[in-house]
Amino acid sequence: MNPAHDAPARPAAPHAELHRRLHAIVGDAGLVHDALAQAPYLRDWQGRWQGRAALVVRPADTAQTSAVMRVCHETHTPVVTQGGNTGLRGGATPDASGAQIVLHTGRMDRIRGVDPVNLTLLADAGVTLARVQQAAQDAGRSFALRLGSEARCTIGGNLATNAGGATGMRALTLGLEVVLPDGRVWNGLDRRHQDHGGLDLRQLLIGSEGALGVITAATLRLQPRPAAVATAWVGAAQLDALVALQDALRARCGGCPAAFELMSGEAVALVLAQVPGTRAPLAGRHAFQALIACSGTCAGPLAGPLQAVLAEASAAGALGEVAFGSTPAKVQDFWRLRQGIAEAQLRAGRTHRHDVWLPLSRLSAFVAQAGAVLQRQAPDVRLLCFGHLGDGSLHCALLAPDATRAAVDDTALQALGEALHALATEHGGSAVAAQDLDAPRRHAHAIEADLLMRIKQALDPNHLMNPGKVF
Amino acid sequence: MNPAHDAPARPAAPHAELHRRLHAIVGDAGLVHDALAQAPYLRDWQGRWQGRAALVVRPADTAQTSAVMRVCHETHTPVVTQGGNTGLRGGATPDASGAQIVLHTGRMDRIRGVDPVNLTLLADAGVTLARVQQAAQDAGRSFALRLGSEARCTIGGNLATNAGGATGMRALTLGLEVVLPDGRVWNGLDRRHQDHGGLDLRQLLIGSEGALGVITAATLRLQPRPAAVATAWVGAAQLDALVALQDALRARCGGCPAAFELMSGEAVALVLAQVPGTRAPLAGRHAFQALIACSGTCAGPLAGPLQAVLAEASAAGALGEVAFGSTPAKVQDFWRLRQGIAEAQLRAGRTHRHDVWLPLSRLSAFVAQAGAVLQRQAPDVRLLCFGHLGDGSLHCALLAPDATRAAVDDTALQALGEALHALATEHGGSAVAAQDLDAPRRHAHAIEADLLMRIKQALDPNHLMNPGKVF
Repeated sequence: MNPAHDAPARPAAPHAELHRRLHAIVGDAGLVHDALAQAPYLRDWQGRWQGRAALVVRPADTAQTSAVMRVCHETHTPVVTQGGNTGLRGGATPDASGAQIVLHTGRMDRIRGVDPVNLTLLADAGVTLARVQQAAQDAGRSFALRLGSEARCTIGGNLATNAGGATGMRALTLGLEVVLPDGRVWNGLDRRHQDHGGLDLRQLLIGSEGALGVITAATLRLQPRPAAVATAWVGAAQLDALVALQDALRARCGGCPAAFELMSGEAVALVLAQVPGTRAPLAGRHAFQALIACSGTCAGPLAGPLQAVLAEASAAGALGEVAFGSTPAKVQDFWRLRQGIAEAQLRAGRTHRHDVWLPLSRLSAFVAQAGAVLQRQAPDVRLLCFGHLGDGSLHCALLAPDATRAAVDDTALQALGEALHALATEHGGSAVAAQDLDAPRRHAHAIEADLLMRIKQALDPNHLMNPGKVF
Repeated sequence: MNPAHDAPARPAAPHAELHRRLHAIVGDAGLVHDALAQAPYLRDWQGRWQGRAALVVRPADTAQTSAVMRVCHETHTPVVTQGGNTGLRGGATPDASGAQIVLHTGRMDRIRGVDPVNLTLLADAGVTLARVQQAAQDAGRSFALRLGSEARCTIGGNLATNAGGATGMRALTLGLEVVLPDGRVWNGLDRRHQDHGGLDLRQLLIGSEGALGVITAATLRLQPRPAAVATAWVGAAQLDALVALQDALRARCGGCPAAFELMSGEAVALVLAQVPGTRAPLAGRHAFQALIACSGTCAGPLAGPLQAVLAEASAAGALGEVAFGSTPAKVQDFWRLRQGIAEAQLRAGRTHRHDVWLPLSRLSAFVAQAGAVLQRQAPDVRLLCFGHLGDGSLHCALLAPDATRAAVDDTALQALGEALHALATEHGGSAVAAQDLDAPRRHAHAIEADLLMRIKQALDPNHLMNPGKVF
């Protein structure tokens, strides 16, 4: 894949024999060959990457996927799997060669079953996250993952990218069905097989970015629907105050908070300015803000303990302002604001996103110093910080607004990114450019990179699965 | 490894050259060659397996472990890693060949660091679970895993066996240090490297039973120490009542319950009869009992919501009796009773343990029918059931008391075990004999077994790591 401006979309080469064989499997409904119809599959939603494809194939089920992969295996055709195409890192966009096929999972969209007693849900890979959430809710349960793209992103994509980080898909997945590079179907949906010890192949597939096989279905772990959820939006002048607040909530509320979504004041302001229908939750301006949700009913009405902790923090001067999600509409407003960040960035201009991990104790100093670097090197570029505070993961987006587009070129943004990475390392953390899919392996110790390559070689000896991305 | 009665301990062959080279690395303090001193390393604590070893090697640190593994790699010497030797499945006992060395981690017992702000603890593999718990507590935090063997089992062993099941070491581990089969040291301790996506090698090592490398240290995830823990012991006539109770607690108390430890009345009675210092928590006899712990302080004094849920269940006739852990001494009594099961079985005679997984909705029917099978086929054999109720994992121990030792032979016990396995499968679950380390791979689909073997081959091409166990 190339930056969008380097490789404009061109129709793929004919590949007549491949076309014929795949058509025999998936039929008219499963092939996209018209150049116009192919376009959305060849470009990521942000328009950052643009590739070409020999064909776009949309199998209807696991059996068709298996047959497609057998043909690809025999013909040495490389495969890029695509779900909702909502990724931020280009993992689902084909490269510019025109040799790859895009295997799109969108027609595999059945929820195969919901078992509320045993807290499981079995879904095809192409089911959207929102539909899984709804099906869980309809059965009186809940599915814990929430993402800004939940209306469009798919479970298969959530799994391949390990969406949700430390508390994400790894913890929420009980089984997988995977079509291997040679077309064999591994039915690992049945959780019973993983409960007796031994190596856990499922965990290896989660986060593998389509480089080991095609995930076609998953058994997901549901949770009892909490009898109550208390939600608040808080503002503070110091980031450290929010880190301390999270710690207090963890200690005082057991499993809570269910969410602690950090946003810098800049990020909040950008969403309010760019995304229609969003509303400011607080009256004042605050350098750091957070959406907090606690679930459970240990306290009867759960707002009780959350209110107590927030009142204490306010009294101590740590919080500037607090708003409670006192009505369902207000709670919806809070989430819309948080989930609008990606759209806001897209509307605002060029952003370079960096994923940072830092020890919680160093987060505040990092953000302050990153701000100083920007002030010095490129005062027109804005730094937007947001993320799940839980484990010190932070997204930092460098935003070059339209007005300064001419003044701040890509080289300058790249230099800024490198400065951020160096700063993160200084603070005992690390950072990668969000679009840099290969970074984890390149940044890994040489020994780890060697082990990863051996596993790749063992499971995909012809290197046909999403070549050029993670591997 | 052989059943203990088949292969009595004999002194290992001299292996003079291997001895000389390993001695040069670990010195006198790191080699155990006297037959008497070696004996405890060659036999599991239950006395079920007995093997022989070329040498028992106790490296002092990671560097020595690396040097030892380099020698083993060069000399094609197979290696069995051993921690606290508290396993129930024989994974740490050498085979009868006398060709393997036992690599014991007991001298690697430093806690390298505790970081309470960032909720991490870095420990050598040979540190006991109890010491990790204590170090976390000393820092005002907690480490969530509790096991009956915690005073002796080691973190390395907990990791290699994935102790604690679904909510166990997988969720509590942030990083690993591993000496590979060729002696290279993979430093994967730093969690920052895993937070940017890609394949997660750490998860592959957890549960690998020493078959891929030697885990020498781990970065563990701590939790804030809950401000309150409420504990209760309950008795019920029906297992289903306890399943429903767990569900009610999950819904009402958010993250709670922190523990829901099921024991059949038979299992409780056995511990009370066999283990000195244990006390009956309830006045009456109940077919099913459970230790329940909820942590957090959502409710101020947490006993509130737990009491409310238990009172409701009692009023509905679901519970026969309830006792609260109203003093620290009482809470300690509860846990001693739960953790005494393994010791009680050992004292009582021959037990054959089976690990069963069942959908929660079928648990009750399974246990009732298993009891009927026993009644029919071997009325003198007792069935003890216990386990973490959370995810439907159940341990079933068939106990042939001394008095009937002559009457019930191993073949009969084995037939009973097979009947249990068939019954579990009928109910949509599965079961393996606890000592059957190879079962997960044998029971896996052929395709999964093939993938596992490819990974084994990629990471341990000479098959020197714990041969004959998982692989």
